[in-house]
Amino acid sequence: MSLPNLSSTLRTELGRHRERGRTERDDLYAVLDAGLICHLGVIVDGVPRVLPTGYGRLGDLLYLHGSSANSSIMAGHSQEVCVTVTHLDGLVCARSVFNHSMNYRSAMVFGVARLVTEPEEQLLALRTITEHLAPGQWSYARQPTKKELAATSALALPLTEASVKIRAGGPSDEPEDYALDTWAGVVPVTSGFGEAEPDAVLRTGIETPPHIVKRGQLPQHGSAARLATHDR
Amino acid sequence: MSLPNLSSTLRTELGRHRERGRTERDDLYAVLDAGLICHLGVIVDGVPRVLPTGYGRLGDLLYLHGSSANSSIMAGHSQEVCVTVTHLDGLVCARSVFNHSMNYRSAMVFGVARLVTEPEEQLLALRTITEHLAPGQWSYARQPTKKELAATSALALPLTEASVKIRAGGPSDEPEDYALDTWAGVVPVTSGFGEAEPDAVLRTGIETPPHIVKRGQLPQHGSAARLATHDR
Repeated sequence: MSLPNLSSTLRTELGRHRERGRTERDDLYAVLDAGLICHLGVIVDGVPRVLPTGYGRLGDLLYLHGSSANSSIMAGHSQEVCVTVTHLDGLVCARSVFNHSMNYRSAMVFGVARLVTEPEEQLLALRTITEHLAPGQWSYARQPTKKELAATSALALPLTEASVKIRAGGPSDEPEDYALDTWAGVVPVTSGFGEAEPDAVLRTGIETPPHIVKRGQLPQHGSAARLATHDR
Repeated sequence: MSLPNLSSTLRTELGRHRERGRTERDDLYAVLDAGLICHLGVIVDGVPRVLPTGYGRLGDLLYLHGSSANSSIMAGHSQEVCVTVTHLDGLVCARSVFNHSMNYRSAMVFGVARLVTEPEEQLLALRTITEHLAPGQWSYARQPTKKELAATSALALPLTEASVKIRAGGPSDEPEDYALDTWAGVVPVTSGFGEAEPDAVLRTGIETPPHIVKRGQLPQHGSAARLATHDR
């Protein structure tokens, strides 16, 4: 069962560049699923703190990786937080300095983060985060012990209030600037994976498993093309 | 004149993985200069908001791109904010699920952001941000008009309180796990620029200028090698 599409709330309603907003829930999934890390915003002693961390999505729930030893991330527990995932796709060079822009896909999720405390859900959260980063690793690597599980904390954030913003395409210049002898266009920003590098102390005879080889070959932003539309 | 190296404050002191902390100001510069966007944390109506935005560094000052129409970013004015720049360098696959990690370089800057209001400094901020993203574009593209300058706002944040965290190298497993028949290593995460794509409506006869060609050829994370050290 999936939640409805994204509806505007006071904080997710776009002020600027409304044409870049997306309300399809699938667009939210695509931006989140294509990312590797998110930036989690929490308030600590009255001051915002922005923390990069791993995550994974399970349906309409986002699991954020923490640790019982990481007080900043755990400060997000039972607090209103903001999670942002951003993909930078290109530098948009316009004919004027003013109209320079960036192509990007970003998702911003608001909500009260819940600390995952039941061992069963801790396992599920760790599995979701691990499989998000390196699909196939969960069943391949050694499973967590009870002690390890107790030391790995996670926050759960429901995908109920979120906004998605996407810019794609070429520059948008002032009408009179198109007459200038000035180059304009996009410098694409690329990201992906390199070939897996075995641990220096890896025992001889252990081949790189197929799911890791495959990760090194997959483009990270496979969904970019589907989402790309021209923004003018 | 440069500020001294980074000293710990209550919020920049690392709780976890202190061995990943760096206190050299040059490491802070390197992480900031290698990035293209930052994530700015502000508090709006008592809730944290994490906003991706462009930036540029001028000595020990960070200029963040905003717009007088973007109320969220401008909410950071005269407020304690947090700016985080993160580079993800690799997925660290350990022999156990628990010891999976990521290689990354991140910088977190705290301080009160000042709204840039003087036209001269607005021009300087816009120049710093433009040159950071696309070196050479400032003198190449059409300069901002007074009206455009008035519509482009920037925040200035001094680099006085910051922390830098870097993880590099292979996995760190439990002693007994090295005997397992399990592959371990790093899947590098790569990022860079692609070949510049001219605007679809570019006037014929306008060649891609050398500074744009060069941007498309430069690796984005040129400083990664210098900073890389093994983390065990």
